[in-house]
Amino acid sequence: MNAPLRETPVETPQVLIEDAGRVRRIVLNRPAQRNLLTPEMMTAVKDALDAPGARVIVIASDGPAFCAGHDMKAMASHHADADGGRAYFTALFNQCSDMMLAIANAPQPVIAEVHSVAVAAGCQLVAACDLAVAADTAKFGTTGVTFGLYCSTPAVPLVRAVPDKHAAELLMTGDIIDAARAERIGLVNRVVPAAELTETTMALAHHIATKSAAVLSIGKRTAHQQQSLPLADAYAVAADAMVENLLLADGREGLDAFAKKRHADWQDK
Amino acid sequence: MNAPLRETPVETPQVLIEDAGRVRRIVLNRPAQRNLLTPEMMTAVKDALDAPGARVIVIASDGPAFCAGHDMKAMASHHADADGGRAYFTALFNQCSDMMLAIANAPQPVIAEVHSVAVAAGCQLVAACDLAVAADTAKFGTTGVTFGLYCSTPAVPLVRAVPDKHAAELLMTGDIIDAARAERIGLVNRVVPAAELTETTMALAHHIATKSAAVLSIGKRTAHQQQSLPLADAYAVAADAMVENLLLADGREGLDAFAKKRHADWQDK
Amino acid sequence: MNAPLRETPVETPQVLIEDAGRVRRIVLNRPAQRNLLTPEMMTAVKDALDAPGARVIVIASDGPAFCAGHDMKAMASHHADADGGRAYFTALFNQCSDMMLAIANAPQPVIAEVHSVAVAAGCQLVAACDLAVAADTAKFGTTGVTFGLYCSTPAVPLVRAVPDKHAAELLMTGDIIDAARAERIGLVNRVVPAAELTETTMALAHHIATKSAAVLSIGKRTAHQQQSLPLADAYAVAADAMVENLLLADGREGLDAFAKKRHADWQDK
Repeated sequence: MNAPLRETPVETPQVLIEDAGRVRRIVLNRPAQRNLLTPEMMTAVKDALDAPGARVIVIASDGPAFCAGHDMKAMASHHADADGGRAYFTALFNQCSDMMLAIANAPQPVIAEVHSVAVAAGCQLVAACDLAVAADTAKFGTTGVTFGLYCSTPAVPLVRAVPDKHAAELLMTGDIIDAARAERIGLVNRVVPAAELTETTMALAHHIATKSAAVLSIGKRTAHQQQSLPLADAYAVAADAMVENLLLADGREGLDAFAKKRHADWQDK
Repeated sequence: MNAPLRETPVETPQVLIEDAGRVRRIVLNRPAQRNLLTPEMMTAVKDALDAPGARVIVIASDGPAFCAGHDMKAMASHHADADGGRAYFTALFNQCSDMMLAIANAPQPVIAEVHSVAVAAGCQLVAACDLAVAADTAKFGTTGVTFGLYCSTPAVPLVRAVPDKHAAELLMTGDIIDAARAERIGLVNRVVPAAELTETTMALAHHIATKSAAVLSIGKRTAHQQQSLPLADAYAVAADAMVENLLLADGREGLDAFAKKRHADWQDK
Repeated sequence: MNAPLRETPVETPQVLIEDAGRVRRIVLNRPAQRNLLTPEMMTAVKDALDAPGARVIVIASDGPAFCAGHDMKAMASHHADADGGRAYFTALFNQCSDMMLAIANAPQPVIAEVHSVAVAAGCQLVAACDLAVAADTAKFGTTGVTFGLYCSTPAVPLVRAVPDKHAAELLMTGDIIDAARAERIGLVNRVVPAAELTETTMALAHHIATKSAAVLSIGKRTAHQQQSLPLADAYAVAADAMVENLLLADGREGLDAFAKKRHADWQDK
């Protein structure tokens, strides 16, 4: 059989999804474009967050940058639209916010694996994840203000992740900070040598994946629910969740295994 | 007089209450059971928190563990109840939450003195206190997830005490951290050598106990009230509290003593 | 012409206002009184915060203390008023709160430059600013409790700036902490040698002043608006702000400059 006359270009997917055991890796894959977010990428990330099958999710990326945010040149071109870009910008930031909310709403723990520059929406992605592991080569910033676009959506998870004065400094200066400072202010959980980043992150992910998915899910959801409530209401919500958790099959299994000094065998396999 | 035929066992109290000057020590006292919380203990702690007479309260414990949380074997046995344990679990976590809320609602500052392992509800107890002093031998964890029971009630004070990513790591991994890390993330105020723990904690308690109980009470209550309000509302509540405070007998006494460069003589003696 | 018979004393202003380029310095100027706040000072500070013309505002002070709070001797004298001082105290703390709120509501970033002791309302001033730079000679405390007046209004920005246990320790002990500890707990952004304080602070201010005032304004306002909202609502508010920002003249200018690799030329000159 002959080769085809015209070579069909192999389409490189903008996001790679890899399930390794019960850990799903979502890998941003536009290395030459510093993983600038496209609508296709945001759809792919959200779909991978929403799809069943994983106990823990890792968000990583390929190439010289973790993620440089949105494509500002593409945005600039829409200022010439009949409506000045309003419809395009509205759709863009609504979609981006939906993706970020999908991280919070995912039943699984979501871990950012940050090997390099994470700025603007890239920094937001890190702040929005439940956990973050950074290489010592990682850098972080909410750089929009320098280009006339304050990082107001990145500020949503940022002000929830780090103390107010540090959030304000990042947002108002647009400056880049290194991984050590990111760890000190609470933006990432830990910093490791770049060569150990994926190994460390995946070890953390697999460690969490030894827990019951049903139990992780009820716990993550309850923590979000109670966090902004008055204290007595928060306790009421959390106490109900403890009872619900104990009546789950995996709640019964866990306590029975503890009482009998055996390993627990969780329901979802 | 003869000894009784049948020896009545001397009941060891599960919680010791010791008032030293204006400082009350509440000491968990089931050392052989790692201070696993019983209904009797929670009742005793809550009663000691609610009883008048102290300007400052310290919560400490005896034995190899500060507190290992609830008795999971006892809980496991209630899975065999007709209702699967629902009634028992509901009562247990409601009582526990009432005890934790009593710390927040106590008019006095409450200080945790942590010499060793504080996990699950034991870690919650530390997070729920206003202040915490730890020995360098202390350890902390919200370990429930490992046994199929996410620490949803411990998460209530934990997410309010430490940055989100650190809270999530503790809750999702179930891992134990040491005292130095607990200090870095804000779970405890300071770490001291184990041999100096009680001395340091009691010195802090007695230092605070030199203040007016009425003034400490209005201040602690107001801080809780305003914390979750919008900023302008928070200032309105706090400004009212300043006026109320200044019109207290101890408010007048404090300012008069300051103006006359003499020691204040507070009302509650 | 003869000199006047009676010398009119040159009135030294209690607050100095200096505009250096687009940076406004508000300097407390009662050095001999440790910058104890007077109604005149609070009016002058609020007016300077509200007046147009600056892209960034710095609050600094002259003399041995940054600010020692309110004048407690003056307050003590009002306990002799017919109403026990209620009317005076109410007016005082409402005015003070209005000044503090003016910092949050100012469209510009506001930076505290702290060279020395900042206690009670002086510490509040630091906590209330968006950013703070401290000399290694600076000290901080919410000392009121020691004098029978819990720092309930200082607690408003303090509990929002630093982790709960650190805020409680400051408020309940009335103790003074040094600059290094203030940085560790997030009360100030950075600490520098005293000789470099003004230079460092002004460099930071001028750096932020290279951004668009309109963009800084929308960003600061939105961050405050969304911070206490549930996550989905926060994203909705912030996504709207991104669109509004992009449709500003300076939003268009910033992205066009980025796309064309030229310097942006902001509208307010």
